[in-house]
Amino acid sequence: MPRRVDHEERRRQIADAVLRIAAGRGLEAVSMREVATEAGVSIGRVQHYFASKDQMLVFAAGHLREHIEQRVRRSIAAAGPALTPLRSLRAVLVALLPLDQDGRNDARAGVAVLIRALGEPGLAGRYRSGRSDVIAAVAELLRSAAGAGELRDDLAPELEANILLALVSGLASDLLLGHHTPEQAAAIVDHQLERLA
Amino acid sequence: MPRRVDHEERRRQIADAVLRIAAGRGLEAVSMREVATEAGVSIGRVQHYFASKDQMLVFAAGHLREHIEQRVRRSIAAAGPALTPLRSLRAVLVALLPLDQDGRNDARAGVAVLIRALGEPGLAGRYRSGRSDVIAAVAELLRSAAGAGELRDDLAPELEANILLALVSGLASDLLLGHHTPEQAAAIVDHQLERLA
Repeated sequence: MPRRVDHEERRRQIADAVLRIAAGRGLEAVSMREVATEAGVSIGRVQHYFASKDQMLVFAAGHLREHIEQRVRRSIAAAGPALTPLRSLRAVLVALLPLDQDGRNDARAGVAVLIRALGEPGLAGRYRSGRSDVIAAVAELLRSAAGAGELRDDLAPELEANILLALVSGLASDLLLGHHTPEQAAAIVDHQLERLA
Repeated sequence: MPRRVDHEERRRQIADAVLRIAAGRGLEAVSMREVATEAGVSIGRVQHYFASKDQMLVFAAGHLREHIEQRVRRSIAAAGPALTPLRSLRAVLVALLPLDQDGRNDARAGVAVLIRALGEPGLAGRYRSGRSDVIAAVAELLRSAAGAGELRDDLAPELEANILLALVSGLASDLLLGHHTPEQAAAIVDHQLERLA
């Protein structure tokens, strides 16, 4: 079904343009016209794929989530063949930090989506549900790592997952602002993980 | 010098209007006209106190910092007379969480300032320097608490201060989104502090 694939690809190209604008100037700056210019297509083309700005933003937020999931999968793959639960966990946490330009753009777009979500209960609900999924996944890895003897077996997986992810999210802002180098941020995550061993 | 006091008070009233608009709609929505309407004064009055929008935003960012410092002082005062270094530390960290409506407004305005700072090196520098001051203060409290035997004496104060403040900053977003209740967020901070004991 090559036509179908083309349509999905074009939607994603438009969503990428939305995220680039959001990363640079916030979601307030996103309009059909700006997105068309950024994506290098006509306004008619953008309107063909998205009936409203809201529809486009919801799709772009989902697309941002796909970016992040891809980064997590690549980070796990890069962690090598001898992948223990603890190494997977570290790979996931480090993948959530903005350590390169793509990561920085996505993190900035993420802050823009967060701002908007604070004023829109529907978007806030999606954001929370995405956050709950990540916390459940991290808690599961903590449980596996404890089961494999890599971490203490008396830790509370959900609580520690909430701490690790809040830490990563705070470190992301610090990285964006240049308060930490990527190496320092990764070392802080490692320090917190060692504490659970 | 009552005239002087009036001027300062008026500047702060205008800055409060800037922060309310930023909290609700982001800094993109801040204009001289919007601020005048929000503050209930004429545009001429706003322009009398601030020659440019940038000047107004820089003053508002400093005013936001004063709000936060006041909240920290109140939290320390509320922690009671038997104030150990560890109790002071907890009071500081909890005061940085958006636990009531004022705190939520300030935290939302803070995210708006963060977004803008990412595109403006001057504002980013101020933000980083504010962050360094807070980290130094928290590290000093950690050192005192360790000296008083309330915390382990082998901990690295700067590293732990960076972890605690990144944690608090991540928890702030979680609170804004309704992912945690205030009680849950405070319990998470306590859990991390107990770990250092």
